[in-house]
Amino acid sequence: MAEHGGNLDLALQRFGGHTRDWIDLSTGINRQPYPVGELPAESWSALPSRSDIQSLHRAAQRAYRTAAPILATNGAQAAIQWLPHLASRGRARILIPTYNEYAAVLSVAGWEVTETSELEALAGADIAVLANPNNPDGKRFEPNQLLALLPRVGRLVVDESFADAIPGLSLAPEAGQPGLLILRSFGKFFGLAGLRLGFMIGSEADISALAVMAGPWPVSGAAIEIGNRALLDREWADATLARLSRDCLRLDAEVARLGWPLVGGTPLFRLYETGDANRAQERLARAQIWSRVFSYHEGWLRLGLPGSEPEWARLSAALTC
Amino acid sequence: MAEHGGNLDLALQRFGGHTRDWIDLSTGINRQPYPVGELPAESWSALPSRSDIQSLHRAAQRAYRTAAPILATNGAQAAIQWLPHLASRGRARILIPTYNEYAAVLSVAGWEVTETSELEALAGADIAVLANPNNPDGKRFEPNQLLALLPRVGRLVVDESFADAIPGLSLAPEAGQPGLLILRSFGKFFGLAGLRLGFMIGSEADISALAVMAGPWPVSGAAIEIGNRALLDREWADATLARLSRDCLRLDAEVARLGWPLVGGTPLFRLYETGDANRAQERLARAQIWSRVFSYHEGWLRLGLPGSEPEWARLSAALTC
Repeated sequence: MAEHGGNLDLALQRFGGHTRDWIDLSTGINRQPYPVGELPAESWSALPSRSDIQSLHRAAQRAYRTAAPILATNGAQAAIQWLPHLASRGRARILIPTYNEYAAVLSVAGWEVTETSELEALAGADIAVLANPNNPDGKRFEPNQLLALLPRVGRLVVDESFADAIPGLSLAPEAGQPGLLILRSFGKFFGLAGLRLGFMIGSEADISALAVMAGPWPVSGAAIEIGNRALLDREWADATLARLSRDCLRLDAEVARLGWPLVGGTPLFRLYETGDANRAQERLARAQIWSRVFSYHEGWLRLGLPGSEPEWARLSAALTC
Repeated sequence: MAEHGGNLDLALQRFGGHTRDWIDLSTGINRQPYPVGELPAESWSALPSRSDIQSLHRAAQRAYRTAAPILATNGAQAAIQWLPHLASRGRARILIPTYNEYAAVLSVAGWEVTETSELEALAGADIAVLANPNNPDGKRFEPNQLLALLPRVGRLVVDESFADAIPGLSLAPEAGQPGLLILRSFGKFFGLAGLRLGFMIGSEADISALAVMAGPWPVSGAAIEIGNRALLDREWADATLARLSRDCLRLDAEVARLGWPLVGGTPLFRLYETGDANRAQERLARAQIWSRVFSYHEGWLRLGLPGSEPEWARLSAALTC
């Protein structure tokens, strides 16, 4: 299996302690989650109805500012798992470095996968994949750059898992045209990764095909109920956006004292050049703070944002000691 | 899309009222659900870890009395959705009448699907599918009958979605041998269909392949937490089994007064020959009780079991008036 953040199992094995002792900054998941609140009993007991799912779709269309066909999935990862089956196998090109599940999932399903670090080199692919903003380096593409690429590929898959915190970057308002397929993650910005909720936005044909593959009950009753509330809560989103935008600069300032330059990031995570990421990871792990390293780049360390003042204090102490 | 029970949307459209006014007996979902209780905040916020998922797998192995490889899925339906991709397309044979998603999902994915009502006629299939006990008619097969069929098919898929309430019928203790693939539903017996949790039990090779297709986070944190509790709660299961076994006979007795013969069933649902199922469905619907009819059999009406004395009283009144 591909390496991932959120692998606290590994931290416990190597450095001990219990899950609750650790501050997991190895992901870009917001550590001040949307308040779940009470759920009606039917969310647990009843099969999600079509109208329930449709109401979630409408909430997501509103939040993502799109009128295009949309499909709720069991996390953005579930959407990735179906991607290889959307068309006959062909040439996939992936803009790297990026989230490593695309190459893994497409390869296993028999696609010919090429990785490239040049946007232009995606042209000619049957499926071209990129993330905007990108994970882990935070690289951003203007919507127009991507729309210019669209006619030159079979399908353009834009992973917008971290786009909630960067208004204006999303292609969702342009979705619906053939060949453009957008993935959204609910759990990262809303801090509810355990809920498993994501969305695909695309053409009528693609979303219909994906809906058939995903089946009649692709998401849980809890995902429908909480997703509906959270996606329509502009006040919470605005406050969260403001906090994350402040806090990511605070993290940069903390880290700057060590002389680790910022490679890039989004308001939900930051990537630093540490020179020796394994050593940096160990240093934080001794204070039971977990971070993300990358086998393909020995200097890179990715950190999510602490979620409370006690967490900030522990991070600050770990960085200065 | 295939027709399903649990389609209360349709009942509301045709007969009015609000969801909460209706007693939905159109499914075989237990209407006295397992008590969900409190969930730790991490169930919502954290990505499910591998050890979390492994603990759920161990609980399911214990509940289903098997040591075979197992995979938690986003409902038994999610397992069905992956089935066509487990092997190269070929000949699928399905023992009918049964749950209609198998034929639909396999056909769409390019399999040649034949339906048969004779167990013997499944021999020679690349994938043979049957449900035990069967839905909607409750037909049962002895484990030995099915094991005898196993060497004569490429894969034998046994849908045990309703097996929890009929101890001794399950092939799970025999699972692990090549070609045998068992589906279990969590939500029906435990009355938590909105949670979306199911399992596949099979050979090392099949379960590994399915795990790759389902991806690293196939189920929610809530499904892991609640699944773990419920699957290990023998006391609740025994009490529920006793209640369902009593109550299904009570339902038969209520219905017998109308002269609708029992076609078959399980402790979670009963199938009756009404002569005119649409008329019978309408009669119950006027009392806001929803039931299941089948387009392929005009007399059949399937009823789940009421979950409380007020529900029994309403059903009794609707049947006698």
